[in-house]
Amino acid sequence: MKIALLGGTGDIGEGLALRWAYDTSHTVIIGSRDPERAETKAAAYETELDSRGVDDVSIAGHGNVAAAERADVVVLAVPPYHVGDTVEEVADVLDDGDILVSPATGMKRDEDGFHYHKPGVGSVTRIAANAAPEGVAVVGAFHNLAAGRLANLDADLGVDTLVIGDDEDAKGIVTDLAEGIEGLRALDAGGLANAPEIEALTPLLINIAQHNDGLHDLGVRFT
Amino acid sequence: MKIALLGGTGDIGEGLALRWAYDTSHTVIIGSRDPERAETKAAAYETELDSRGVDDVSIAGHGNVAAAERADVVVLAVPPYHVGDTVEEVADVLDDGDILVSPATGMKRDEDGFHYHKPGVGSVTRIAANAAPEGVAVVGAFHNLAAGRLANLDADLGVDTLVIGDDEDAKGIVTDLAEGIEGLRALDAGGLANAPEIEALTPLLINIAQHNDGLHDLGVRFT
Repeated sequence: MKIALLGGTGDIGEGLALRWAYDTSHTVIIGSRDPERAETKAAAYETELDSRGVDDVSIAGHGNVAAAERADVVVLAVPPYHVGDTVEEVADVLDDGDILVSPATGMKRDEDGFHYHKPGVGSVTRIAANAAPEGVAVVGAFHNLAAGRLANLDADLGVDTLVIGDDEDAKGIVTDLAEGIEGLRALDAGGLANAPEIEALTPLLINIAQHNDGLHDLGVRFT
Repeated sequence: MKIALLGGTGDIGEGLALRWAYDTSHTVIIGSRDPERAETKAAAYETELDSRGVDDVSIAGHGNVAAAERADVVVLAVPPYHVGDTVEEVADVLDDGDILVSPATGMKRDEDGFHYHKPGVGSVTRIAANAAPEGVAVVGAFHNLAAGRLANLDADLGVDTLVIGDDEDAKGIVTDLAEGIEGLRALDAGGLANAPEIEALTPLLINIAQHNDGLHDLGVRFT
């Protein structure tokens, strides 16, 4: 499968790119608003993989539109306030049956800690769904992963990710992509309307990390 | 320490009562709006403990006011819409230094699943804090525990509970109470303002339980 990571030069994009390239045979394409930056980061990911003995993997870097055009699954690894714009930017090059994946969450910080900043339409995942063209399903996933741990191929994951969506086939495909990453378990959390509680978990994880020694870069396991 | 469980005849109250009575030497007092029901349930808990060889524990049942009057720590194990009223009902019998513990969360259900129903003041824990008398600290804890698993003394817990509050001493006492329960780890999640994300985790757990085989009565572990 061909996976484009738009915003794939950022921290969560880096982690997903490295893990998919290292653990699976999927083709990973890095997208960025700046094509040169995408190419540079893609080359850096290749170097990192090469240093671990994976020398037969080629990672391409492109502008977001060119990256999305080449992929079956497009991950919106961009800040929440760019999710709607990014979907609109690539909408014309998506084919029927392509899948958009939304991992972003809105947060604000005050003196007490981080808080979920719920968008007016209900969730960031819903922003993506509202902007998506007909025939392209949106699936929410990878919201609650610690970026540093994900990008460190020496780190055991041993965590869960929650998958939501209204298209069961698309959800199944994203679930398989998630479980292709070693140590990551994908759990079904229902339809897109269940996104806010998943997105709200990310600021909670940051609050816990800040208040407990030895729990930085933490994830969650449902048991 | 003397712990009153107001609403201690309900499912989360039952679980906390049994676990504290079984795992610790704290005195457990059951409170209910109906004193007779409190006495009946307290006797049933004693019978359950007796059947497990714990025959030296006495659990009293009282009306909510009488229960709160006898306790150092008062757990508001009541539905979210009764939290404010219950605090007001017992306010006069609380002493300086007593602690109120809020485990309740607001939820609503629609066709997609359960959702966090955020109160206007920000959280259910905040409702308790706003109603609490001067000198009585409010601590949020025990929001995300599966009641059935908690009440089943044969079940291993192996889960976390998140503790929040603006009074560090009170938080420390509730953390110790929580960790007195075998298999329960208490994590600091900061101040009371961080309550909404914790309360929102409860409907998420229910959604996950409904969509994944073998994950009913689930809890959460931060790792």
